[in-house]
Amino acid sequence: MPVFLVLHGPNINLLGKREPEVYGKLTLEEINDCLEKAAVELNIQLKTFQSNSEGGLIDALHEAQTWADGVIFNPGGYTHTSVALRDAVAAIHIPVIEVHLSNISGREEFRHTSLIAPVCQGSIAGFGWRSYWLALQALATHNLD
Amino acid sequence: MPVFLVLHGPNINLLGKREPEVYGKLTLEEINDCLEKAAVELNIQLKTFQSNSEGGLIDALHEAQTWADGVIFNPGGYTHTSVALRDAVAAIHIPVIEVHLSNISGREEFRHTSLIAPVCQGSIAGFGWRSYWLALQALATHNLD
Amino acid sequence: MPVFLVLHGPNINLLGKREPEVYGKLTLEEINDCLEKAAVELNIQLKTFQSNSEGGLIDALHEAQTWADGVIFNPGGYTHTSVALRDAVAAIHIPVIEVHLSNISGREEFRHTSLIAPVCQGSIAGFGWRSYWLALQALATHNLD
Amino acid sequence: MPVFLVLHGPNINLLGKREPEVYGKLTLEEINDCLEKAAVELNIQLKTFQSNSEGGLIDALHEAQTWADGVIFNPGGYTHTSVALRDAVAAIHIPVIEVHLSNISGREEFRHTSLIAPVCQGSIAGFGWRSYWLALQALATHNLD
Amino acid sequence: MPVFLVLHGPNINLLGKREPEVYGKLTLEEINDCLEKAAVELNIQLKTFQSNSEGGLIDALHEAQTWADGVIFNPGGYTHTSVALRDAVAAIHIPVIEVHLSNISGREEFRHTSLIAPVCQGSIAGFGWRSYWLALQALATHNLD
Amino acid sequence: MPVFLVLHGPNINLLGKREPEVYGKLTLEEINDCLEKAAVELNIQLKTFQSNSEGGLIDALHEAQTWADGVIFNPGGYTHTSVALRDAVAAIHIPVIEVHLSNISGREEFRHTSLIAPVCQGSIAGFGWRSYWLALQALATHNLD
Amino acid sequence: MPVFLVLHGPNINLLGKREPEVYGKLTLEEINDCLEKAAVELNIQLKTFQSNSEGGLIDALHEAQTWADGVIFNPGGYTHTSVALRDAVAAIHIPVIEVHLSNISGREEFRHTSLIAPVCQGSIAGFGWRSYWLALQALATHNLD
Amino acid sequence: MPVFLVLHGPNINLLGKREPEVYGKLTLEEINDCLEKAAVELNIQLKTFQSNSEGGLIDALHEAQTWADGVIFNPGGYTHTSVALRDAVAAIHIPVIEVHLSNISGREEFRHTSLIAPVCQGSIAGFGWRSYWLALQALATHNLD
Amino acid sequence: MPVFLVLHGPNINLLGKREPEVYGKLTLEEINDCLEKAAVELNIQLKTFQSNSEGGLIDALHEAQTWADGVIFNPGGYTHTSVALRDAVAAIHIPVIEVHLSNISGREEFRHTSLIAPVCQGSIAGFGWRSYWLALQALATHNLD
Amino acid sequence: MPVFLVLHGPNINLLGKREPEVYGKLTLEEINDCLEKAAVELNIQLKTFQSNSEGGLIDALHEAQTWADGVIFNPGGYTHTSVALRDAVAAIHIPVIEVHLSNISGREEFRHTSLIAPVCQGSIAGFGWRSYWLALQALATHNLD
Amino acid sequence: MPVFLVLHGPNINLLGKREPEVYGKLTLEEINDCLEKAAVELNIQLKTFQSNSEGGLIDALHEAQTWADGVIFNPGGYTHTSVALRDAVAAIHIPVIEVHLSNISGREEFRHTSLIAPVCQGSIAGFGWRSYWLALQALATHNLD
Amino acid sequence: MPVFLVLHGPNINLLGKREPEVYGKLTLEEINDCLEKAAVELNIQLKTFQSNSEGGLIDALHEAQTWADGVIFNPGGYTHTSVALRDAVAAIHIPVIEVHLSNISGREEFRHTSLIAPVCQGSIAGFGWRSYWLALQALATHNLD
Repeated sequence: MPVFLVLHGPNINLLGKREPEVYGKLTLEEINDCLEKAAVELNIQLKTFQSNSEGGLIDALHEAQTWADGVIFNPGGYTHTSVALRDAVAAIHIPVIEVHLSNISGREEFRHTSLIAPVCQGSIAGFGWRSYWLALQALATHNLD
Repeated sequence: MPVFLVLHGPNINLLGKREPEVYGKLTLEEINDCLEKAAVELNIQLKTFQSNSEGGLIDALHEAQTWADGVIFNPGGYTHTSVALRDAVAAIHIPVIEVHLSNISGREEFRHTSLIAPVCQGSIAGFGWRSYWLALQALATHNLD
Repeated sequence: MPVFLVLHGPNINLLGKREPEVYGKLTLEEINDCLEKAAVELNIQLKTFQSNSEGGLIDALHEAQTWADGVIFNPGGYTHTSVALRDAVAAIHIPVIEVHLSNISGREEFRHTSLIAPVCQGSIAGFGWRSYWLALQALATHNLD
Repeated sequence: MPVFLVLHGPNINLLGKREPEVYGKLTLEEINDCLEKAAVELNIQLKTFQSNSEGGLIDALHEAQTWADGVIFNPGGYTHTSVALRDAVAAIHIPVIEVHLSNISGREEFRHTSLIAPVCQGSIAGFGWRSYWLALQALATHNLD
Repeated sequence: MPVFLVLHGPNINLLGKREPEVYGKLTLEEINDCLEKAAVELNIQLKTFQSNSEGGLIDALHEAQTWADGVIFNPGGYTHTSVALRDAVAAIHIPVIEVHLSNISGREEFRHTSLIAPVCQGSIAGFGWRSYWLALQALATHNLD
Repeated sequence: MPVFLVLHGPNINLLGKREPEVYGKLTLEEINDCLEKAAVELNIQLKTFQSNSEGGLIDALHEAQTWADGVIFNPGGYTHTSVALRDAVAAIHIPVIEVHLSNISGREEFRHTSLIAPVCQGSIAGFGWRSYWLALQALATHNLD
Repeated sequence: MPVFLVLHGPNINLLGKREPEVYGKLTLEEINDCLEKAAVELNIQLKTFQSNSEGGLIDALHEAQTWADGVIFNPGGYTHTSVALRDAVAAIHIPVIEVHLSNISGREEFRHTSLIAPVCQGSIAGFGWRSYWLALQALATHNLD
Repeated sequence: MPVFLVLHGPNINLLGKREPEVYGKLTLEEINDCLEKAAVELNIQLKTFQSNSEGGLIDALHEAQTWADGVIFNPGGYTHTSVALRDAVAAIHIPVIEVHLSNISGREEFRHTSLIAPVCQGSIAGFGWRSYWLALQALATHNLD
Repeated sequence: MPVFLVLHGPNINLLGKREPEVYGKLTLEEINDCLEKAAVELNIQLKTFQSNSEGGLIDALHEAQTWADGVIFNPGGYTHTSVALRDAVAAIHIPVIEVHLSNISGREEFRHTSLIAPVCQGSIAGFGWRSYWLALQALATHNLD
Repeated sequence: MPVFLVLHGPNINLLGKREPEVYGKLTLEEINDCLEKAAVELNIQLKTFQSNSEGGLIDALHEAQTWADGVIFNPGGYTHTSVALRDAVAAIHIPVIEVHLSNISGREEFRHTSLIAPVCQGSIAGFGWRSYWLALQALATHNLD
Repeated sequence: MPVFLVLHGPNINLLGKREPEVYGKLTLEEINDCLEKAAVELNIQLKTFQSNSEGGLIDALHEAQTWADGVIFNPGGYTHTSVALRDAVAAIHIPVIEVHLSNISGREEFRHTSLIAPVCQGSIAGFGWRSYWLALQALATHNLD
Repeated sequence: MPVFLVLHGPNINLLGKREPEVYGKLTLEEINDCLEKAAVELNIQLKTFQSNSEGGLIDALHEAQTWADGVIFNPGGYTHTSVALRDAVAAIHIPVIEVHLSNISGREEFRHTSLIAPVCQGSIAGFGWRSYWLALQALATHNLD
């Protein structure tokens, strides 16, 4: 049974309380619950982790390589500024998918560029918690075609 | 039963023959077949259309508004240059999802900016034909949550 | 009796339905009617044409040269991106006036630059359908002073 | 009877003598005369004012608010550099129309950007003194539609 | 008893009437009154001056040097465009503090750069009339530490 | 009695020893002491915290929301690079004031842009430890006017 | 006998009438005649096609791949703006040579960048109709060395 | 006997007191005296004028045209920001020479571009009051060669 | 006997496994061993530390100041983005040398700018683990000349 | 019999040995031989010269004017950086054609701009030694049409 | 008796023949003669040197330091591109004045920036051969004030 | 015994006399002596060459390929401007190391970009003459690991 890491970046712990018109009304716990239910149906195991620390996210990516078959990663505000996270994604040998709750192309100019996306398998943005859910579908079918 | 338009932009008619290491080995017909099979399972009706013409794509978007419940749109090379297509997407009142076969963030600099994405519901890139398939899942669940 | 072409660019066929707070409530047909009434008073003949296709607009400009005394042109989203339309305007020997329904300087950054305006006689923006009406006045008085 | 301010910015007092191939052969007095004749026909009262001083133009805009129903404003060289004039236009509660004698889009790069236009009702450029005349028509019909 | 100049730049005379959601509801006279009351408590004498003219503000700064112990300066729209005002601040030998009613970093891009701030002692923005009041506290304690 | 967080960003623990001509001679402890004395006079309670870690600062902001009435925040070098800290400030529902010891506008080009300031209530820079003291005055009077 | 497509982009149908000091005095028909004569001498067969439509040019490139041994392509104003045409050239497996009548490097800034040239075999500009003639020589000797 | 205007821009009235290491120790009066002595030797009449107001300088240039044979102009801080002054210089029909006391190329980035110089006969910078003296020599010999 | 800190930034713990064609085949432990052997020969004591956390690296630099005579620092991905690390290097009073395993100038555009290098004594890049070894030579001879 | 200069810029003496996948396998001598054979057929005389020195190339262009009817010029790496060579080409009164062996538009960003091309008659790039051969055809037919 | 070097950069040997409407009708020899006559009157000795080679000009500047009291330098096209010449000017301990025949600010964009001027004493442009003559006056009076 | 070229670029012949606070007090001869002594210890033979001419340095690199095992190259001011030197380094098949006496990242903006470094093995900057010495160590150990 494949096992994936769902890695949540900075400020995502505030979900549900933080600008719900942008990020939706679900809390992080509720999103994780939804994803775990979907994983069960797909016969997949999920582990979830959230950190506000760039270094903590890098550590999590490094470790994931030793036990996970893929990563669903929402780098939050680090998306646009972190070369170190980009290097971490590029350094590990498992597929990583970048997800965003909001449609970042439609927001401030500085959110239009992702340093992480070029080294991911693909990216999904704008579907609220469904962005994670779609990434799960993508990872689950990754070796099918 | 909801009905969606799958709208393919310029050069996508060459799929399978064109740079397969970038765009995958499936032809446009094969992709359309895969999508239609997936649609049947989801109890959705699909219509597919391809055009190399910016004006033809604008026309198709305008018309879709009269019969479709949503659009899965791969604007191809027009993604980065067409204000007119952006205006067409913004003008119609049904959800549009931008999809790309390849991971455009990881290619030439001029492919990193999308004029279309800011007015779409969301965007999905880098999963080959599965990008369309994920968009189909997204549209199908659009009003569920 | 002078005869002018009123040339409408992409998405203008949706007028009245499309973002009325930006573009006004009149439909394209209603605008054309208003202009034709105004033309009758000025003893001018108008022909109107709309196309969503860049090539179609270029063709129309080329042909106008053989029968029209001037062009009132709303290039829509092509205003900011089309060197080919600019070349078409520069290539014909009749006056062309650029018009916009909305005040494009007050909208997104990419709408602040016009590739077409530098080769027109002048430009008028921000007055809704009156932008066309003002251009009609301008063409009508073009050789008076 | 509505009353409008025609506000002329820097160097416009030299009109007729200054680069007539760019700005036309009429002097400022002749333009004002033409406009006043046109105003009489439209049953409108005009007041005209010219200043080379940025501060003087700001003062004039502030005062206009107390007696005028609209402003026809040619900000001349301040068009491209004055945030203070932009703020003055935004601060008053009457419609302001930006006009230019020459087609500024077709001249030096630094003349392509207007800091004033985004806070005006609309802008008209390239028709010589007729730019003012068209603005007069626009103001006169401002509340008709 | 120390004496300070409170120097108000362009459009600040309209305060209270102009975009109150951005600049607050107090008029310039009310702000001056509040500041004078606060000055009395701090045993400081204030003179206040407002001008819409860049040259007038430069003159005021030059003269302040002959009688004032410091300047609280709101350069308004000149903040972002005036090298001449910057040179005036740098040329005089008394401390100058830049203040803004609104949080200029959160507004249009062109308001993010100040040509004046680099030659001031410091800058304070975003606290409405309290920005002036804080600058008064800063000048009053300037030689204490 | 209101309670505020004084949040010190990276390298501020070195204060007094680090480039005193730029940042002043007071140590972090001495600044905290001064602020606490001032707080007592204003009948305010202060808690102070310093961290060199971006994630640590985000955590502190998140927690502050549960107990503090406002934050005085010196983001240090993260001011110019951290979208994640900006998002944290935007996500919490208490007023945050950005402060800087030095006049950052007068230093290197890359220090002229703040990613944090646009989502703060206001910002204060250039007054040494008095920048914090002024922010304290600002928070204390925040609901008075 | 090899067969080549000579593909003319937008506005080239106006040749001879359009700005002859820039583009020369020959009409499109005369150029095609000259090229066909030269082709006969080289034992080559030519087909010529002109379109003002970006989509039409993409279609023509796609089809050429099924019957032609090479393409001489003047993309006109699309040279500087069309990613879709670039993708079409990259997608077909026959050599394409970019030609321009005028010396585009010596004209407006926006004509200095070609999106098409990087995916062509080479480019030739500035020799009037001889640019096509030289491209014909280049294609004819393409496999000789 | 030819007569020239020596026109001093903003802050030059402070000369001698203002940053003497940049601008030299002579006051404006002393510079004017030196220039007048040099003019007598060259059989030239000089009039000198200083203003801190952009509008005042424009007025002075306009008037100079009615009585002067040339202008020596130090636009000070307006050099880098004033399109209106540029237009004034371009509008008058007498030679204007731009001078600067300091070597502006060696100072801040924003001082490297002059909007005035392109429409002057020439420019001289970096020689302290001798910059004016050299311009006087240049005007005096203007028609000799 | 002098003692130096060898400070390894983010992702360097993966060395040997991560893109060996870019970063070489040695693991971090092997590099540290090589350096320690070289240090023994030079009669130098080394301490080595690695962290993926920006804050952790700042802390390490601050502490090094209390016990080390110099630092060899590979800031990894933080090189191009961290003002906070730059400030930390500038704040401590011991020489710091920037090193990179790969030749960063020859990689992606965003790796060409170092925020750290300007405040270091010097920088060395492109020699694999020998970059550290050369820095050790540099520190060892630092006070010799 | 017309006589042309074939002028080879820096590093072209290494041809055949230097990156043959970019520049081809022919040595400079072999290219010169091929060109001379082609010249004989066209009844043209060629002189060839190579220099690695910018000054040497300028000298050669100056002298060519006294004896040559045209120049075929490969400016190599100076193409993108030399205003002095551009001035030399503009200063002489014989036609100059810019040639490049490789398709410079398809290489590094800094090779996309030519300072030389705007003052040449035309330019040819991407055909290996045939670029020179095509330029020879162009010069030979220069006065025919 | 002071002795100065007049150093002429690239293409200046063509003077009189090269674009006389830009650079004037005098040849280099005639300019040198004029300057020598003026030098005699000022009791100054001149040596003149021209080179098209960047290295040759650097050598000349280095040597000048051993025998000259100052340099009048026209760097021609190297003005805008040569860091090496800038370093040479900065390295020698005699005053250097930059001169240009034409008004370079009024020409192409790339001629608006001088790398040399910031390290010169001053610069003079736009007066034809009189630019040199004015620089001679400047050097002659260099130590007078 | 390996033999290396030490290649010194423009202005390095002035070393010791030129801005010693930037470049150190040693003359070029003294540096060469130090390096030769170090080479003897390493059993390496050195040849040293200095030229102020870009072409001369290109020639030296070309020749080095025929006799040297590596090059230590200080391109001086050409570092930031010379594509031709970059091409020369890329064209030869021996390792080249870029060195700089000063820490160029900490100087003017235009010194932050090196056109040469991307095609070198590595680069070393900021250690005075020790930069060369370190490069010698690097070359000496180049094939050891």
